[in-house]
Amino acid sequence: MKIARLVLFTLIIITALSPAVFGDNRVRARDLGIIIGDMEPGKYNAITDVPGVMVGHVTKNSGDGEKAVRTGVTAILPHGGDIWREKVPAGGFVFNGCGELTGLHWVNEGGALEVPILLTNTHCVGRVSDGVVGWMMKKYPEIGITDDVVTPVVGECDDSALNDIRGRHITEDDVISCIQGAMGGEVAEGVVGAGAGMICYQLKGGIGTASRRLPDEEGGYTVGVLVLANFGSREELIINGVPVGKELDVPVCGRGNAGSVIVVIATDAPLDSRQLTRLCKRAVIGIGRTGTCGHHGSGDFFVAFSTAYRIPHYPEARTFTVTRMADTHLDSLFQAVVESTEEAVINTLCMAETVTGRDGNTAYALPVPRLMEIMKKYNRL
Amino acid sequence: MKIARLVLFTLIIITALSPAVFGDNRVRARDLGIIIGDMEPGKYNAITDVPGVMVGHVTKNSGDGEKAVRTGVTAILPHGGDIWREKVPAGGFVFNGCGELTGLHWVNEGGALEVPILLTNTHCVGRVSDGVVGWMMKKYPEIGITDDVVTPVVGECDDSALNDIRGRHITEDDVISCIQGAMGGEVAEGVVGAGAGMICYQLKGGIGTASRRLPDEEGGYTVGVLVLANFGSREELIINGVPVGKELDVPVCGRGNAGSVIVVIATDAPLDSRQLTRLCKRAVIGIGRTGTCGHHGSGDFFVAFSTAYRIPHYPEARTFTVTRMADTHLDSLFQAVVESTEEAVINTLCMAETVTGRDGNTAYALPVPRLMEIMKKYNRL
Amino acid sequence: MKIARLVLFTLIIITALSPAVFGDNRVRARDLGIIIGDMEPGKYNAITDVPGVMVGHVTKNSGDGEKAVRTGVTAILPHGGDIWREKVPAGGFVFNGCGELTGLHWVNEGGALEVPILLTNTHCVGRVSDGVVGWMMKKYPEIGITDDVVTPVVGECDDSALNDIRGRHITEDDVISCIQGAMGGEVAEGVVGAGAGMICYQLKGGIGTASRRLPDEEGGYTVGVLVLANFGSREELIINGVPVGKELDVPVCGRGNAGSVIVVIATDAPLDSRQLTRLCKRAVIGIGRTGTCGHHGSGDFFVAFSTAYRIPHYPEARTFTVTRMADTHLDSLFQAVVESTEEAVINTLCMAETVTGRDGNTAYALPVPRLMEIMKKYNRL
Amino acid sequence: MKIARLVLFTLIIITALSPAVFGDNRVRARDLGIIIGDMEPGKYNAITDVPGVMVGHVTKNSGDGEKAVRTGVTAILPHGGDIWREKVPAGGFVFNGCGELTGLHWVNEGGALEVPILLTNTHCVGRVSDGVVGWMMKKYPEIGITDDVVTPVVGECDDSALNDIRGRHITEDDVISCIQGAMGGEVAEGVVGAGAGMICYQLKGGIGTASRRLPDEEGGYTVGVLVLANFGSREELIINGVPVGKELDVPVCGRGNAGSVIVVIATDAPLDSRQLTRLCKRAVIGIGRTGTCGHHGSGDFFVAFSTAYRIPHYPEARTFTVTRMADTHLDSLFQAVVESTEEAVINTLCMAETVTGRDGNTAYALPVPRLMEIMKKYNRL
Repeated sequence: MKIARLVLFTLIIITALSPAVFGDNRVRARDLGIIIGDMEPGKYNAITDVPGVMVGHVTKNSGDGEKAVRTGVTAILPHGGDIWREKVPAGGFVFNGCGELTGLHWVNEGGALEVPILLTNTHCVGRVSDGVVGWMMKKYPEIGITDDVVTPVVGECDDSALNDIRGRHITEDDVISCIQGAMGGEVAEGVVGAGAGMICYQLKGGIGTASRRLPDEEGGYTVGVLVLANFGSREELIINGVPVGKELDVPVCGRGNAGSVIVVIATDAPLDSRQLTRLCKRAVIGIGRTGTCGHHGSGDFFVAFSTAYRIPHYPEARTFTVTRMADTHLDSLFQAVVESTEEAVINTLCMAETVTGRDGNTAYALPVPRLMEIMKKYNRL
Repeated sequence: MKIARLVLFTLIIITALSPAVFGDNRVRARDLGIIIGDMEPGKYNAITDVPGVMVGHVTKNSGDGEKAVRTGVTAILPHGGDIWREKVPAGGFVFNGCGELTGLHWVNEGGALEVPILLTNTHCVGRVSDGVVGWMMKKYPEIGITDDVVTPVVGECDDSALNDIRGRHITEDDVISCIQGAMGGEVAEGVVGAGAGMICYQLKGGIGTASRRLPDEEGGYTVGVLVLANFGSREELIINGVPVGKELDVPVCGRGNAGSVIVVIATDAPLDSRQLTRLCKRAVIGIGRTGTCGHHGSGDFFVAFSTAYRIPHYPEARTFTVTRMADTHLDSLFQAVVESTEEAVINTLCMAETVTGRDGNTAYALPVPRLMEIMKKYNRL
Repeated sequence: MKIARLVLFTLIIITALSPAVFGDNRVRARDLGIIIGDMEPGKYNAITDVPGVMVGHVTKNSGDGEKAVRTGVTAILPHGGDIWREKVPAGGFVFNGCGELTGLHWVNEGGALEVPILLTNTHCVGRVSDGVVGWMMKKYPEIGITDDVVTPVVGECDDSALNDIRGRHITEDDVISCIQGAMGGEVAEGVVGAGAGMICYQLKGGIGTASRRLPDEEGGYTVGVLVLANFGSREELIINGVPVGKELDVPVCGRGNAGSVIVVIATDAPLDSRQLTRLCKRAVIGIGRTGTCGHHGSGDFFVAFSTAYRIPHYPEARTFTVTRMADTHLDSLFQAVVESTEEAVINTLCMAETVTGRDGNTAYALPVPRLMEIMKKYNRL
Repeated sequence: MKIARLVLFTLIIITALSPAVFGDNRVRARDLGIIIGDMEPGKYNAITDVPGVMVGHVTKNSGDGEKAVRTGVTAILPHGGDIWREKVPAGGFVFNGCGELTGLHWVNEGGALEVPILLTNTHCVGRVSDGVVGWMMKKYPEIGITDDVVTPVVGECDDSALNDIRGRHITEDDVISCIQGAMGGEVAEGVVGAGAGMICYQLKGGIGTASRRLPDEEGGYTVGVLVLANFGSREELIINGVPVGKELDVPVCGRGNAGSVIVVIATDAPLDSRQLTRLCKRAVIGIGRTGTCGHHGSGDFFVAFSTAYRIPHYPEARTFTVTRMADTHLDSLFQAVVESTEEAVINTLCMAETVTGRDGNTAYALPVPRLMEIMKKYNRL
């Protein structure tokens, strides 16, 4: 047993120390032997493990100095079908409202999601919102004529430390490409899409994802989480219980107390809006376990949806029938949210590469070999 | 047509002026020709028009002077069955939190009601809550042993102007009698149950109820409302759009800016917790149309439940199937809540008799003949 | 007395019947003798009666048929100073979340407003939001470099019945003109700014405003309200308690159950965020008294701010001193909100002229002579 | 350095292994060398480090078998003065509403606390609430006559695994003794007051407390937390990042997914209600770091107050002046809440002794020597 673990550890260290790590091929937390929680991830350990869920990224990376563009946009679609007419149940929660996730009032009031969820930088919320309206109008020519109008769901974090946020570099075309390019399967993490310029625990942050699959005897449901992680002070960083932030000596980037996080939760468990809001609240625990105390200035927004059933648009029939879970059986889903959220944040850090952006500001990648040493010191590998 | 209306009006005036009016037989608003809104009431124009809903009252009326007891307790049961194991979907809303409706956090979190709703005076909330626990334990010997514990739902208003509220005159036996005596059919209004000592627009207030039945082509659902009305300044009082409070010269009782209102909404429309909370919010409009501006110090609490389906207690199966309404079809229910709530408050005033209570304080009944004159002056009969 | 009233009434009717009424010079409710509530309005009976508050409108009115543009944008500024560094206390409330008021999470979390409030049509929220970012960046070159980023506050209603909403006709220049053109004094109402294409009770709606000034012995504070009114079914319309909607035979426009309302409340009373949210809730009553039951599909959003003190941006000192009202003295402010909100909606109807817009759809102006007859029938003049 | 740590560790182990540990003298986490977070605790590392705050306990411990009484009541007073007339600013938050903290609607609406906070078992909420009314009426003879009525603030957890909760063993006298016996200084922890029968992570839980003092250059404010801890499944338990629950082989007690937690937060930092609610939300992170995922069935309620200023009862003057913190300076307070909450839960476990209660059910104390081994294994001593 001990020998097996030693071999495993050696293999991990070798992997971690390989040049690839310092190049494009960063390694996810689980592949480093950092096993967060008890539940099993899905096939991709990603939000896309929930069948039908698709993710798209458009990354804008150009220039240097004052005009360095390090930003992007990320889209999450609950399914590839007609989302306007086949809405999904959804709910949200705001832990710390110092930011924006547009459309959340509508999600909570109607209990449904009827548009793709878009993530971007703070100053591009207007343009991305406008792009969603553009995409929806193209897709649904009756919108605004004989049908309703569109309320986009757009979340943001502030990437101004690395990105020329004043340039508002996302266009309607970027939004449309992002949505149309969304797909299932593996999800790119780290310096990609809306995560291109984000900072997390004053290291390079960005996009992260993870998932958990409940055992068959608990329904076999999947919970998938995608985070846009742009929060935390260095000294706070905790990875799987280990105070990594205090042990690292990598230079810090950005003001540690600013920043935000958007958490998108998907599941195929049949939940209603109220239950999905309950899931959202558990993501607070997942975020909190990575070390933050929820700084003032951090907009911490959560939105969850279920793909288990569809909510009709303007149904003839006044009633419809749904199967939903009993609240007494939610605990495994709650645990899945906590674990997935924590792991998604750590995946962000493990997968993001060093980026030099606006005015030469540099956000360093979490150094994996050093991380391995620290985790070993605390006997967590 | 005009003659018919004149005859009707004369009959109403005769009825209103008959001695009975000044005795026990007060007349409900609709019987006075005051027709609030457009929808049709149910058979009893009461919360009990929702099939299965039962109401019980225990009134405590004794003594005079310092120790005048003018109080009571009212119970609303969503059905006569096993409410603990066959919970009903429920939701609540707090418009003005300067008061108490215990258990509302649990109702909103779990989306269900599993106990009777009790109403009483502010200082008896503890004893009534304790009485509910007592009743539940008697009924369910496994509670607190192998099963969960009880979170009572108890709303209150302050009846101290007329009642020796310091005496805390409600006992566990009163609570049990009240619950066990609950029944369907006609509901006593005015100076009864928790309403015994309440004041509304500085007239005698108390319990009121009303209902609306949707046309068959909209589902034929019923909405019933019961209010414990103890709010409002005299000069604010509006009845069916008419500024009655400014025209009355009946002496005022109590501080007009204190007081509260609890609104209980029942329906057999298949709604979930989120939708029931949406119904609760519409009751604000109903209350507001009677003239109040929602004074500081007024605790305005709303709770709604549906009898359309049951939520299991600790089900073996992790999912269950429910039929629920599309939100796009809720408008008639919203209108039914507004109309029923407004009418329930006016019924309270029309049905409550003059009461002299603590220290000789007197809350006068709304004088019906004068009301008729005022309504006629504004052409609303 | 009676003769005086008769003379007054005759004058009002003459005024109302004068050709000007059917042209540009519509008449406000109070000038028609419709006196809502008991409190006195401020000098302009407008949100600008709160010293320092400024309102700007840009109206886009061009074309006909498919491409008829009947829209615009409206800006409300709490003061003419440095709003970013001298924020004002603010709070919001969502009665019915089927719409959007961006930035409200941030307002409620931080308890402050640091940007102008903008109103527009639903599909232009993104562009107007973007325009606010543009204006703020121009004014504050340090934003996004050494300072924070901007979260705009943009409310919307759906003007698609009259306007080519798919055209998204508001530009960043419009937003900047609107903000820069804001001023105190009289406020244009009806078919102006964001109100250009709005419909209210299936008549022509749009912008309305009103105010109340507390007596000196209650502090002499002013409450001002501005509404973007785009809600309600015809038959519901109530004006000062009178069921006007049932008596009118003007053709209806739009789906009566759609539509929304945004209410902006300003005061110079020294209130904190929690208390301002309490004010917002009272606006529900004001809206409700005009007849609506708060239809599904109506986004009813409320935001309030106080000009009484300023909240520093990034203060050196960790504490600052404020004078604020005791909650026990809020009732007059609550009443002022209810009255101003109700009157602002009625002013919208009284001031808006008939508009023919997209595809020839016509929203008729509330016909004043007929209104006068109806109000007289119910003895409310 | 290393030798110093070894000596310290040896001393801790000796202390921990000393017979006293298995008797009355359990050891707090910090005295065991478990240092949670970075900030310094106050003098007593207790909620009472906030000047003026007082805590009282009444413990009911008698009988065995079916009728074993293992319960109690705990009181927290914000100051020893006239709390009714000198209210303190307060705010609350409900993370998981499957339980009860009465009075929280009133705390949030009025932004103030005007009564002692009481904690007890679920079935005694009514009686304890009634006891608070009794105590208040005795102290304030004008209550319910010329003055307002009382809305108690009573939180609960379910101690039925160890306690005859059906017996409702708390009396009004117990409540009055508890309040009157409250004092500053050291706070008894573990099996005391409301904590007598509580279970935490299926070990013996109960009352815990901790505090943090900000450095003088950040204002020198103190944050103190008291928890009634009755939540969590064994395998979830994390202590200072270490997965202790998975390593322990002590028998479990109770259903791990039931249970609740009440967190009371005190500070002398000058905060208003909104800011105190922000503090409450950070306690979620503190709780979450001890391992729970916030099970359905767990009522997780938080209430915070500031002793920095007083809110008048019925002031003559309509305004009053307060000094309050800028939100931009709250981060250290947030961190203090997270650290204090986490440590208070661990103190509960460290201080609670093994208890055998109802029907012989036994909740074992966290075994300190084994804990030390586990913490050492993960290099966290």
